[in-house]
Order: sequence, then structure tokens, then C-alpha cells
Amino acid sequence: MEGKNLFFLVSIILLLIFTFLNLPSPLSHTTDQLFDCTTYSPWCSSKKPFFLRQPENSKNHYADFPNHPLDPLTIGEIQKVKKIVNSIAEFRIKGCVLHSVVLEEPEKEVVLNWRKGHRLPPRKAAVVARALGVVHVLSVDIETGRVTRRETGSYSGYPILTIEDMITATSAPLASSDFNRSIIQRGVDLADLACLPISTGWYGKIEEKRRVIKVQCYTLKDTINFYMRPIEGLTVLLDLDTQQVIEIIDEGKSIPIPKAANTDYRFSRIKKNTQKINLLKPISIEQPNGPSFTIENNHLVKWANWEFHLKPDPRAGVIISRAMVQDPDTGKMRNVMYKGFTSELFVPYMDPSDAWYFKTYMDAGEYGFGLQAMPLDPLNDCPRNAYYMDGVFVAADGTPYVRSNMICVFERYAGDIGWRHAECPITGLPIREVRPKVTLVVRMAASVANYDYIVDWEFQNDGLIRPKVGLSGILMVKGSPYVNMNQVNQNEYLYGTLLSENIIGVIHDHYVTFHLDMDIDGPSNNSFVKVNLQKEMTSSGESPRRSYLKAVRNVAKTEKDAQIKLKLYDPSEFHVINSNKKSRVGNPVGYKVVPGGTAASLLDHDDPPQKRAAFTNNQIWVTPYNESEQWAAGLFVYQSQGDDTLAVWSDRDRAIENKDIVLWYTLGFHHIPCQEDFPIMPTVSSSFEIKPVNFFESNPILNIPPNSPKDLPICKAAASA
Amino acid sequence: MEGKNLFFLVSIILLLIFTFLNLPSPLSHTTDQLFDCTTYSPWCSSKKPFFLRQPENSKNHYADFPNHPLDPLTIGEIQKVKKIVNSIAEFRIKGCVLHSVVLEEPEKEVVLNWRKGHRLPPRKAAVVARALGVVHVLSVDIETGRVTRRETGSYSGYPILTIEDMITATSAPLASSDFNRSIIQRGVDLADLACLPISTGWYGKIEEKRRVIKVQCYTLKDTINFYMRPIEGLTVLLDLDTQQVIEIIDEGKSIPIPKAANTDYRFSRIKKNTQKINLLKPISIEQPNGPSFTIENNHLVKWANWEFHLKPDPRAGVIISRAMVQDPDTGKMRNVMYKGFTSELFVPYMDPSDAWYFKTYMDAGEYGFGLQAMPLDPLNDCPRNAYYMDGVFVAADGTPYVRSNMICVFERYAGDIGWRHAECPITGLPIREVRPKVTLVVRMAASVANYDYIVDWEFQNDGLIRPKVGLSGILMVKGSPYVNMNQVNQNEYLYGTLLSENIIGVIHDHYVTFHLDMDIDGPSNNSFVKVNLQKEMTSSGESPRRSYLKAVRNVAKTEKDAQIKLKLYDPSEFHVINSNKKSRVGNPVGYKVVPGGTAASLLDHDDPPQKRAAFTNNQIWVTPYNESEQWAAGLFVYQSQGDDTLAVWSDRDRAIENKDIVLWYTLGFHHIPCQEDFPIMPTVSSSFEIKPVNFFESNPILNIPPNSPKDLPICKAAASA
Repeated sequence: MEGKNLFFLVSIILLLIFTFLNLPSPLSHTTDQLFDCTTYSPWCSSKKPFFLRQPENSKNHYADFPNHPLDPLTIGEIQKVKKIVNSIAEFRIKGCVLHSVVLEEPEKEVVLNWRKGHRLPPRKAAVVARALGVVHVLSVDIETGRVTRRETGSYSGYPILTIEDMITATSAPLASSDFNRSIIQRGVDLADLACLPISTGWYGKIEEKRRVIKVQCYTLKDTINFYMRPIEGLTVLLDLDTQQVIEIIDEGKSIPIPKAANTDYRFSRIKKNTQKINLLKPISIEQPNGPSFTIENNHLVKWANWEFHLKPDPRAGVIISRAMVQDPDTGKMRNVMYKGFTSELFVPYMDPSDAWYFKTYMDAGEYGFGLQAMPLDPLNDCPRNAYYMDGVFVAADGTPYVRSNMICVFERYAGDIGWRHAECPITGLPIREVRPKVTLVVRMAASVANYDYIVDWEFQNDGLIRPKVGLSGILMVKGSPYVNMNQVNQNEYLYGTLLSENIIGVIHDHYVTFHLDMDIDGPSNNSFVKVNLQKEMTSSGESPRRSYLKAVRNVAKTEKDAQIKLKLYDPSEFHVINSNKKSRVGNPVGYKVVPGGTAASLLDHDDPPQKRAAFTNNQIWVTPYNESEQWAAGLFVYQSQGDDTLAVWSDRDRAIENKDIVLWYTLGFHHIPCQEDFPIMPTVSSSFEIKPVNFFESNPILNIPPNSPKDLPICKAAASA
Repeated sequence: MEGKNLFFLVSIILLLIFTFLNLPSPLSHTTDQLFDCTTYSPWCSSKKPFFLRQPENSKNHYADFPNHPLDPLTIGEIQKVKKIVNSIAEFRIKGCVLHSVVLEEPEKEVVLNWRKGHRLPPRKAAVVARALGVVHVLSVDIETGRVTRRETGSYSGYPILTIEDMITATSAPLASSDFNRSIIQRGVDLADLACLPISTGWYGKIEEKRRVIKVQCYTLKDTINFYMRPIEGLTVLLDLDTQQVIEIIDEGKSIPIPKAANTDYRFSRIKKNTQKINLLKPISIEQPNGPSFTIENNHLVKWANWEFHLKPDPRAGVIISRAMVQDPDTGKMRNVMYKGFTSELFVPYMDPSDAWYFKTYMDAGEYGFGLQAMPLDPLNDCPRNAYYMDGVFVAADGTPYVRSNMICVFERYAGDIGWRHAECPITGLPIREVRPKVTLVVRMAASVANYDYIVDWEFQNDGLIRPKVGLSGILMVKGSPYVNMNQVNQNEYLYGTLLSENIIGVIHDHYVTFHLDMDIDGPSNNSFVKVNLQKEMTSSGESPRRSYLKAVRNVAKTEKDAQIKLKLYDPSEFHVINSNKKSRVGNPVGYKVVPGGTAASLLDHDDPPQKRAAFTNNQIWVTPYNESEQWAAGLFVYQSQGDDTLAVWSDRDRAIENKDIVLWYTLGFHHIPCQEDFPIMPTVSSSFEIKPVNFFESNPILNIPPNSPKDLPICKAAASA
């Protein structure tokens, strides 16, 4: 680069950084006579600059430009979008808010036909804006500067909360003297207050026709783990747009606030040597020659026989696109999955009382699973050999900001075995062939307030994809008058487990619904096949055996054929096949979904939260591809009424045979908390598999080499060890 | 050690080694005019010296002595037992065979009261001997040289096959001219023959009152993967004791023997560069400061907060005993599990035809899961940081032999997260605490002819134990006239998948039943509690919610209360608690079994194989502790009739509340083979968890440290890389 250009570029970058760092905060904090949030509370002051702050040591994204049709919007593109939207009078007004600004992905066919070196298809942004209470869905052509599509939502529900919505809500109750008085009456200093914005769900009454949120508070006194110190029974219903307190429910005043003791989990504060667990010696996954994957242009991951596009998304968290695997026989890349992501979560708590019934979170559509994905902790969230990817998201006023280290990618060797065979004493042949299993992991960790969701996409070189969800973080607990179970009347039900003095871990479920747009050897002619294992009785005299299992194939014709409730005693395999393509010996090529982490929602189908989360009514669904059907709970989830869910779409019972189809799988967890979850939860994980079935002619990893001593690194202890 | 003693010791060892290496083979091979197995066939000659051969570079076990009441018999002890048994006239006869010689474990109470430094309780051997067709179960006191107990079995079934039984059976058919003629007629050179001994099961007819086995053969021509070249339909029924051919079923002569092409899986024979999978760069789990575990006296494993006794067993493979975990609050070791092992396997194939119906293997009781566990391959079966443990087993004539590197123990870091929490944009607090997950794995890999079972016991420092079974190896396939599915009439059912030309992978199940003698804080007062999650409807006006899940605890009174079939839509947690011990806040301390790998056997309960494997009728059972109830299919499984199974014991419906109880869990797999399984199967794994539930007062790994750069090793690529 020539010196002059460089100087020019650096100047521009510096100017941009300066401008960015000094952007006015889009928030204006409400203060009142009792409490000045910005002055006194570490809680309030900690948040304001937080998400707009340029992270330290982060990559510079100002010069990013898109290289692939699916690459997310760059900072430059977002700035253009802001300008374009601002150029329209009705969006220039005060109070206009951008709830979502993301790439509007080109049509599938365009993406499939695009090749490296081609010109990118027109870059467009999908914008959800709200002005004067009306929600607009815009399609913004970044190059031409035109808004090419503009709709107002026809379904119930509001768009995803902005982070500004959430943050504002947490301090808004302080404008109410009643609220402040109640806090003080409970013996809590207002400066210690920590409040959470809790999505209200929809119950057909007060939630109608305005955006509302519930706020519940905790005390930060003597612990950063305020989640363990609930101010139980105090719930503030807020109007999200006016920040007005609509209602304060103030119950449970007699319930003491649990102690702070033993709740802090920070390493710096844990008393050393209080327990005698042997400290483990250093252990690490090492790759002294570097990783075996490359990430082209920041988003196109190539590893072993895999290639896929990877991007952060404010709502889904991580989106995997265009996943293709190389055929070992032909060397060609073959389509497996056009798009895979966590479409929605559903986390219903199992307590119908006033302060708890509404806790039925849908974290992607309400809070933004990606918006809550915080920077990963190198060496701990991901091993040393990890590569990190940043997210570029958009504030409510259209300003782009960087969420650094939001995704990591690493190769994983866990001491596992890819395949093996040894001949045994029966045959005595001197054969022992074993191959180590090395996989590629894409990871993010979303901290939706208390809970931490670790989402992994693991790729194996045998063609398998394993989505995995780990749950850690901190329980949402309930204050209780009890300090011991012997105080509890036998007839009294606590809705959970007494975890510590005055703390109940309330029973809840987690459902994570994956959108899996399978394209087995291309988008067309895909079908969903249930391979049912049925007990077959032999006829008299046929065999000394009375019974065996018979595999019976049923191709799903329409969506209702593919509404699957798993049954242990009526098992099936679930294949997506390309009906037009057969293997050499005539089997349809396909992939199967191998269920795991199965827990089913047992809530009544007419219960409002279950109606909104009706996508959890089955573990598997299959829909015909429709680019508008991405989000299992609908486009607008906040206070939605369940009129735009996967269940509604599927009940149209459209044809799904020999089509471009999308498979939906829900991982489920029932969680009855236990004392081991206090004050922070050891990770619980579940996964399922997307696995080739007659997709390859034979074992695709037959020729991977075994490890030999000459391959392994030479390591010594770190100097200070 | 003084020079003189050393000389003396070395002389003895050399003498012992010389004696051992020159022991006469207990086998006498049958030859006939058509075929001299020992001269011509690599198959026969490979086996003879195989299992009695002292492995290269193996540890010297001649000086081993027991240090713990549960330590397996040493070579010296086995030699004494042989001498003692031989001193009894009726066992001195030709044809007397020792089917099993293992430690007779002292009574549980004795073991629990034993402390390091105490004198060992009397060392006894449990011997199963067969002489003149009668099976004797002996208790041999090694010190006094006396047989203190002697019983003859009262149940159906024969003891575990000896390896000599299996090996003899594979060549015995060659004594039959009819057999040899049929082989030659099929175009197979007798020198290429590879035959497998297949347990017959029991079908109430020909299997009655004599030990029989079925032999089926393959050709080794042009491949070591003879399993892919079945001589279909030819089954020889042999008398195991006389080696006489009872019956030859010779069907399927028109079925071609599948080709050898593309069946070899050895790295040395795979054509390099035939496919373009990117070779992965070296990757390794590294611990330059060494492992964090110790193994005291070869068997007592101490790692982090865990301690357990580990030993190889010819039948179970691996036995974990006296598993105790340290309480972080008191520092005391607390009992969790007295004994855990794979008690039995059941592998029914789903083809009722003549050559297949009987394939309903019970690998532990018929073949010996440990006897088939071959030396692990360092760097591939287990990572570089692994420790290896040998097994000492006993040949049919009482001679001890060493199965080297049969078990490995290693620490596992897979890039996973023990627990984490980051504060999110909502709270904005600058907190991010993450702990890496490091676990300890105990592994063995049993090669029961074609299949390889990888059994892991994974221990986590949060108190969790995860038994895991991986399936790899080679399918048992069926020859077929078809080379393409388009040749198959729509009404014809193949009992499996056409994997390659003329090869069908027959559908089958795998069940692995674990014996888990849980001792939560000691053996007494343990109870089994079903914590059932039930849908509860709210009453009118109670709540905007219509429903929630309520946890209802049911303590099992008797065995039938604990016969559990898992139900997705009627979920429960399954706890073993100590009813006498409560946590600080009054919860019963316990562990729960967290199901995984659930597949249920759907065979008819009256089908003979299902009767014999009735222990798979439920996924969970709980029995009162009874030292004779170790083996889920009964003590004698070979040709058993199902009169001594876990199901029979459990149907006694004994009291199990506040007792010493044993939990049984069955991991299940349905396997519909696919082309990816040809010619060798990528590993498929399933696991379940044994997990603390209110056992600890709080998260027991709160104080483990995060990784920091100073802890991690400094590695460079191996010189040749």
C-alpha cells in the first residue's frame, strides 16, 4: 500500500473510532428524587457504556467488506443503512427505534449459484423499525439506497427487545416512589439494587396492545451473585415505551432476602484451601503446527472434508450455512445443510404463583440469543488452539458495535476413537487398527441474564454434525421463608428444591429448537422418511425365534406425517433423503437426525405459554422450505399469541415429498434443581446428531491415518510451573 | 535390594518365564486328511500361541502381590489355585477344564471395614471347573490350600466358554469331509477359511443337555476383513466337548461370496491419496507435568476428589469398586458406589432365518467381555498421557497369562466447560468466570469377534460418573444374491441394508446392562426414589397459567416399584438416596441415574432369547444387595434358559426400602446398518450419568481455578513434522 493511501486510511479509521466512541448514548436515564442511578449504583453505571464500548484488543472491523452472499452486514453497510432509514421522514422522529438490522439473505437459488469470484448479489438489509408504535419491516438496498419493501406486521407480538429496552427497564421502576419505598422497607439500600427485565409472555389481558415488561429485583449487597438474593414477590409491570409503572405487585414482604454468604463464585474471592480437592496439573489440547482449518474471508470455514459459512446473528447466535462435505470417492463437495441455527428457546418455570407464572422465556425472539452472547474467555471457554470471531451488531439508533470474541472455532481431540478393530483371541490374527477422533467445534455462549447457554456445532470427518447445548450459569431462584425442609408442612408444595437457607430453585424446562434446512445433494427432491422398527411375530414353524424387529419405511407425504413425538417402544429412524439420488447399490442417499436430549413439554396445549411455544409440541417437524419460516415462534415473539408458530405453519399440512424441506428438532431438558446447582451450576449438556445414512458409498474415513509418536508435539511445562 | 537377593529374584523370574513360555499348549488340534490346520492356514496357526504368549515389552507380573482386599488374583496365587485344584482327584483327570478362576471377593462388610495397613482378609479364589460334564463352583482358600465350598450349579446353562473352547470350535468342522467338500464346492480354498464360534442360545431342542456351538465360516482370501466375505447359509452345529459335528445346515449355495475389494481397512494397505480429505495437523492432549492421578499398588486410583479401586475381570472387563468422593466441606471421603461393571450384553439380530435366528449374543456370560479385551493401541485407543493396566487371566488348564495394556486411565480435556457465567448486556457487570472441564477416563475395548465395544468410565470432579459404551469394529453381515436394490422385489424383506454388492448388514440391537451397587454414604438405608414430573392443572382463578409440572416423590417399597420403563411423556428422575442422611437444609442426600442411550428391546417376552435376556425388559431395576446376584443373565449364561436372570430375581418383589440396594441400568442401541458402516464402522457412542443430587451442600467445584497462560505447556512440533 502506498504511504499516502495508508495515511488517508488510518486517518479515516481514527476519525471513525473517535466518532464511534463519542456517539451520544441513545439512552436517557430516568432519575428521581430518591435515587440517582448514574451516581450511586454500580449496577446502573456499569451498564451504560458497556455494549457500545469498543472492546479492548479487538480486531478493527471498520475496513471489513463482504466477500460472500451470506456474510453479515459490515460496519460500513450498517452505517449506510442507518443513513438510508434516517432519510425517511417518519423514521427520523424521536422515539423511532431499530429493533433489528441484519443482512437480508439473497434468495436461496442465488446463493446456491454464486461462486467465488462472482460479483456479490445486491446487498440488502432486513430492518425492523418501530415508529409511533407501528412496526415496519423494511428491505433496504444498500447499494441503491432504496427501501425496496416495506410491510407492517400482521401477526400478534412485538419485535425483539432492544438492549436499550432491557437496560432502561431495569432502572425505570426507580421513578416510582412506591417502588422505592417498598425496597427500603425491605431493608435494601437502593444503591444495591439489581433489577432484571422479564418478558411477560401473553395471557390475554394487560399485555394486550402495548409493550409491557415485568421487572423484579435483587440486592447486590455483599455479593456479585445477586441472583441468589431475590426480593421475592415484588413485581413491577412497566410500559416499555413510556417507562411508566403500570402496576406494582408487592407480595411476600415477610420472605427474608437470602444471605450473601457463599454465593460469590469469582476465583478472586473464593477462599483458597478451604477444601482439599487435589489441584489438577496443567492439561491442554496442543497443535504446535497450528490448526488444520482455515477461515476464508472471516466466514468460510474449511476443515478436513467440510466447508461451511459461519456467522454471528443477533437473534440466533450462530448461523451455519452452506454446509458441504467432500465425497471421498469423487472429491466433489456435496450439499448437506443449507442453514442450521437455534431458531428459538422456550424456558417455562413451573410455578403458577403471581411472581412466577409468566416466566416462560423465549430467549431468541424476546432477548436475542446472539445479543446476549458475550465475549468468550480464551483458555477456559475454548482451548488454546481456538480461533475467535467477532459479531457486529446494531444499537437501537442504528449504530453498529462490535461484540468481540463471540464465537470460537477449534479442533477437538478428546482421546476418543474414530473407528477401531482388533482381532480377538478367537481369531488370533495380529490386527489392531485404531484411528483417533478429531472434530471441529464452533461455539458460542449466551448469557441470558442468569443462565448461560453454551451452543456447540461439532463436525466430524465421518460426515456427522452434532449440535450440542450446555446449560450453566446461575439459577433463577425464589425467596422462601424456610431454612430447612423440616419446617415445611407435608401438604405444602414448594415448586422446587430448597437449595440453601431461604432459597428455592424452581423447577423449569429448557427447549432449544433447531432450524435445520437440510439439502441432501441439493435443495430439490428431498423427502422425509420414517424408518420404523416394528415387532414382527414369526409364523408357526417359520423359525425357532418368535419375533424380530422389522424396518418399515414410510415416506412423509405432508407435514402432519412428519409431526413426530418420540416413543421408546415405537422407535424409528428419521431420514432426510434425496429421492432422486441413489447409492451405487441402490439405497437413497440421506442424512438422519439421531435424537438425544429428549424431554417433551407436558404443559397443556391450551396454556398460553404452550400456545406461544407450540413448536415444542413435537420433537421433530418437517416443513416445506419457505424463506419466511425461520423463527419457530414467529417473526415477532414478544407478547406473541401463538398465531405465527411452527405448529401453525405445519398444521397447514402442505406437501413435503420431493421438495426442498426444513427439519426442526427440539432438544429438551427438565430441570429439577439440586443443591449442587448453588450458587452456580455445573454444566449439563445434551446433543443430537445429524448423520449420513447411505450418503457415502462406504466409511468416508477409512483412509485417515493413525497417530504415531513422530506426529506428536514435544511439550515442556510452562516456565513458571 | 542386596545383590544376592536380586540375583536370586532374577533367576526365579527367568525360570518362571522359561517355564511359562514352554508350557504345553492345552489344545490338541484335530486334523484330518483334507486339511492340516497347523501347517497351511494362517488362521489356525495365528491363534495357537496367541493368548498364552507373553506380550512384548509387557510388565513383569511374577512378583505381583495383592495389596487390597479386591485386588485380582496374582500369577503366584493363580498357580497355587491350579495346584490346589489339581490336588483333588476328580479335577486331575484329562478333560477337566477351568472355565473361570477369579478372586472370590471378601464379604462387603469386610472390605468396607478394611483399612490400608490392615492385614488382608483371607485370599480366596472362585473357581468354576467342569469335569466329566459336571460343573463345580469351588471356593479355594489360597493360604490354607483348602477348598472351603463346593457346589454344583442348580440352574440351566453352562459356564462361560473358555478361549480353548472357542478356538477349538473354529477348526473342528474341518474334521468333517462333508463340510470340507461344501467349502471346496463353493470355490473356497480350505487354507483361506476363517470360522467363528457362535453361541447357540437356547431354543428348547437340540441345545438341551449338551454343550453345543454353531460355526460359520468366511474366506480370508485377498482380505484380512474376512467378515465381509461370508460363506452364507453354511452352519455347523458342533458338540463343544467332543468336537463332533452334530449337524451341517448347508443352504444358500447359490449366494455368491462377496468380493474382497475395498474391504481391507489396514492403514498399510489403503491406497494413499485416493481421496482428498485434508490431512489433519497433529493434535494431542498434553500434560508436561505428568498426570494428576496416582494408582497406588497398581489398582487404587486417586484423582482430584475421587478414589476407586480398578481391576480387569475376564467376564465384566472392567470392575470399579469402592468409588468414593471427597466432600469439599468436611474433606472426608464419602461412599458413592461399592461396585460398578458391565454385567451383561445382549445383541439380538433381527433375522429369523436358519443361519441367523440364533445370533442373540450375550457377550459377557458367553464369551467373556474381559477375555476379549485386547491390548489397547497407545496414542490411538488412548491419548499419550494414558496409563495402562494389564489383566492377568487364566487358561483352561489353570495357567495364568497376561493380557497387557488391557485398560487405560487418562485425564481428558476436550475443550469443554465445567461451569461458567458471564454477565450480559442487561446487567452489564464486568464478570466472566469460566472453568475448564477436566475428567478422568478409564477405558477398555473388547473385540468380541467382529464388534468392538469401547467401554469408558468417566469421572468428573463435580461428582458425576459417566459410563459410556462406544461401538465400532466390523458388522456381522449376510451374503445376498443381490448387487443392487433394483433387483429386489418390493415384497421381499432383506432383514437389513444392502451395504455393498452381495452384502447385507443385518439389523440388530445392542444392550449393555450395568450393575451399579450404589452405596450412598454407606451401604445401609439406601432407597430408590422416583421423582415423577406430572402435569398439574391450576384451579380456576388460581393463575393466568393453566398448567405446570409438579415433582412428586415416590419411594420404592419393593422391587416391582422399581421396574422402570422410561417414558418421554411421563418423565421422572431416579434417585438413590440415603434415607438416614439429610443435607444441611434437609434434603435427602443422593445420586440420580440420568438415562441416555435409551433403546428398549421390543422382542416378544416369550421369545427364547428375550427370556434369557429378560434383564432388558426394563431400562432400570433395583434389587436388594445379594452377593450372588452379580450377573444379569445369571451365573451360567451359555445355553441358559432364563431361570436365573435379573428379571426372575426382581419378580420376587423383595423389599428395597432403607436397604443396601443395587441399581441396574441398560444402555440400548438399535442398529440399522448403513453403507457408512462398510467395511468398518465409525464409532457410535451412548452414555448415561450417575450424578449427585443434594449429595453435596453446594457446587463441589466452586473453587477449581481457571486456566491461565502461565499454566499451559510450551509445545513445539515433533522434529520430523
